[in-house]
Amino acid sequence: MGIVVQKYGGSSVATAEHIKAVAERVRKAREEEGLDLVVVVSAMGKTTDRLLSLASEVARRPAPREIDQLLSTGEQQSVALLAMALHDRGVGATSLSGPQAGMKITGRYGSGLISEIQPERMHNLLAEGQVVIVAGFQGMNALGDVMTLGRGGSDTTAVALAAALGADRCEIYTDVDGIYTADPRIVPEARRIPEISSSEMAEMAWRGAKVMHPRAVELGALYGVEIHVRSSFGEGPGTIIREDTDLERLETRETLAGIVHDLDVSRVTLTGIRTGPGTMSRIFAPLAKAGVSVDVIVESAPKEGFSDVAFTVSRAGFAEARRLAGEIAEALGGEVEGEEDLGKVSVVGTGMLNRPGYAAKTFDSLGRAGIPIRMVSTSEIQVTCVIPAAQVEEAVRRLHEDFELEERDV
Amino acid sequence: MGIVVQKYGGSSVATAEHIKAVAERVRKAREEEGLDLVVVVSAMGKTTDRLLSLASEVARRPAPREIDQLLSTGEQQSVALLAMALHDRGVGATSLSGPQAGMKITGRYGSGLISEIQPERMHNLLAEGQVVIVAGFQGMNALGDVMTLGRGGSDTTAVALAAALGADRCEIYTDVDGIYTADPRIVPEARRIPEISSSEMAEMAWRGAKVMHPRAVELGALYGVEIHVRSSFGEGPGTIIREDTDLERLETRETLAGIVHDLDVSRVTLTGIRTGPGTMSRIFAPLAKAGVSVDVIVESAPKEGFSDVAFTVSRAGFAEARRLAGEIAEALGGEVEGEEDLGKVSVVGTGMLNRPGYAAKTFDSLGRAGIPIRMVSTSEIQVTCVIPAAQVEEAVRRLHEDFELEERDV
Repeated sequence: MGIVVQKYGGSSVATAEHIKAVAERVRKAREEEGLDLVVVVSAMGKTTDRLLSLASEVARRPAPREIDQLLSTGEQQSVALLAMALHDRGVGATSLSGPQAGMKITGRYGSGLISEIQPERMHNLLAEGQVVIVAGFQGMNALGDVMTLGRGGSDTTAVALAAALGADRCEIYTDVDGIYTADPRIVPEARRIPEISSSEMAEMAWRGAKVMHPRAVELGALYGVEIHVRSSFGEGPGTIIREDTDLERLETRETLAGIVHDLDVSRVTLTGIRTGPGTMSRIFAPLAKAGVSVDVIVESAPKEGFSDVAFTVSRAGFAEARRLAGEIAEALGGEVEGEEDLGKVSVVGTGMLNRPGYAAKTFDSLGRAGIPIRMVSTSEIQVTCVIPAAQVEEAVRRLHEDFELEERDV
Repeated sequence: MGIVVQKYGGSSVATAEHIKAVAERVRKAREEEGLDLVVVVSAMGKTTDRLLSLASEVARRPAPREIDQLLSTGEQQSVALLAMALHDRGVGATSLSGPQAGMKITGRYGSGLISEIQPERMHNLLAEGQVVIVAGFQGMNALGDVMTLGRGGSDTTAVALAAALGADRCEIYTDVDGIYTADPRIVPEARRIPEISSSEMAEMAWRGAKVMHPRAVELGALYGVEIHVRSSFGEGPGTIIREDTDLERLETRETLAGIVHDLDVSRVTLTGIRTGPGTMSRIFAPLAKAGVSVDVIVESAPKEGFSDVAFTVSRAGFAEARRLAGEIAEALGGEVEGEEDLGKVSVVGTGMLNRPGYAAKTFDSLGRAGIPIRMVSTSEIQVTCVIPAAQVEEAVRRLHEDFELEERDV
């Protein structure tokens, strides 16, 4: 019998009642389907936020190592409670913290990377017939300290475990019942996507779909892990994420996966700066050093040695990015300007490969709706437009309609 | 410079404000007194109770292993928060969980025993000038799992660390400013005891003084650790607990340390049971197996092969103890009776050694106050009387007065 990894997010274990419901679902999978189960759990509901708020009460700038020691306790509580709830249903189960599960982490506190998984203890427990419950989002670094993967990292834990254990699949349980062609709160006609390729899903996650962490999707693609996204509360089939290997299927597949959006975007532009070799590095190295994540970058074609460079950052990074960009613009003889209340909308789909015209159709759709496009970024499988935040919802509806996503057969 | 271990209990770190106050005290000890500090911290306020209540919501009989995994997170949160608060004051500090601090634990989940401490990491951190903050009440067992020492175990952690690190002293910070000759809430004239022997303190702790865990006192005596009990909120000298080695001092020392009491006592008596070799084991083995802790045991002199056996247990253990005792009494041709609302009052002091008459004086004092004595237990340094719970306060006041404890010079 193969191994299945299940992951339950914070909202699925928010209260004792929720934990009991998850235990019941795990019991069924164990007893009725006979699965060998490894269950990854996040911290209960708002636990992480509550702990972060305590940290900010005791210190102005809490050290990342201590933040990690603090936050990792949230998942450790959930796994112990879920194990108890399973015992109460007569199901053998053992909870493991990330370090106990053999998760080895490297990198920086607060944003660790999984370097290795030593699965012996998990295999032994599975061989004893136990359900293994693993704290998401954490592991042990070379010093023997707990280190976290950063927020959203429980998805990554689950997919990495599925890869290391050679699991049949990784099931991500969440508060929605799958991936949709657009956010159903904005587009009521949006359809659940029964199956999507890893590359499309990764693009959608990076471009704003909140359902899965993009790192986890990419890790799944890298190791060929089949991921099922399902609702923790219902019984629907959800969405299956897997690699495309069947060429014929690829030819006939849907051309577009969906429309995703993100409301947390701001733009900084350096205008009239002297350009030459090394200019881009001179602009972006200080931002990276300051920990500001840059998303879309656009450089205009240089004209007589001068050009404009624009980039987007999250709103939290706007003030710092603008300050740093201002210093560099001045040094390069230019100026800086910025715009804070932006969003972006992306059309994503592997069907766009080798089929030109999707970018043009996107611009046309937004243009007819009177929505100004501030920046554009395209790749083989997506077109992203940065637009005013206030017009993002309208853009999602128009694109969903113009690309006829609601009419597609399943 | 020597090492000092400080321990702060749950009420001393109950809120972010409390944690900041502890950080300020630690900073002063580090910077103004130049001490090498290892700080042991309990879980914040009611955290342990809150986690236990969550456990009882998800499972009827939560497994001890999972309880330990769950509860140990409380202290791990406190140590991280205290480290952050110290950083905020410019003091280098590193938090360690019990396992990280090299605390090796053996025994049963929920009531582990410290088997070894590997202090290398703590010594390295101290050598770097760091304050080392260690989660109390926990360590790692041979399986690599977290195991707790049972409640009150943070005192034991602190004293054990002081022994393992060769510390100059162990300071226990609590919500009272030392050990008193009686509970000041009952006897306003009670005096703080500036210095007390380990054996007296251990008796007082076992007999009901709540200030320190008796295991910790005995461990301190075993390894010659000098313990200072002080208030977390004030600056007083507190009480020093240490071994008596100076014979002359022993001769002139105070004859009585104090009066302690305990309101959580109930009694079970087996009457008219056939007695013989093995009877006591037959009575108490099933209680031990059921996890019921027995305190005072009294057997009447056998008469024609029959006797009475009485023992005390905490109220939580009363129903189970009475049920088990009933089965045994029946098998031995006797009957069982019990009394739930009892308490005990103890007169403790090494001064009682070789000075007869203290027991008689105790009985006389209670008798004149009209307080009935249900059971008596004595040792070289204490006399304990089990009496009705409703009369415990009066007994404490009478004994404190009759033994003239308020008048003693310090």
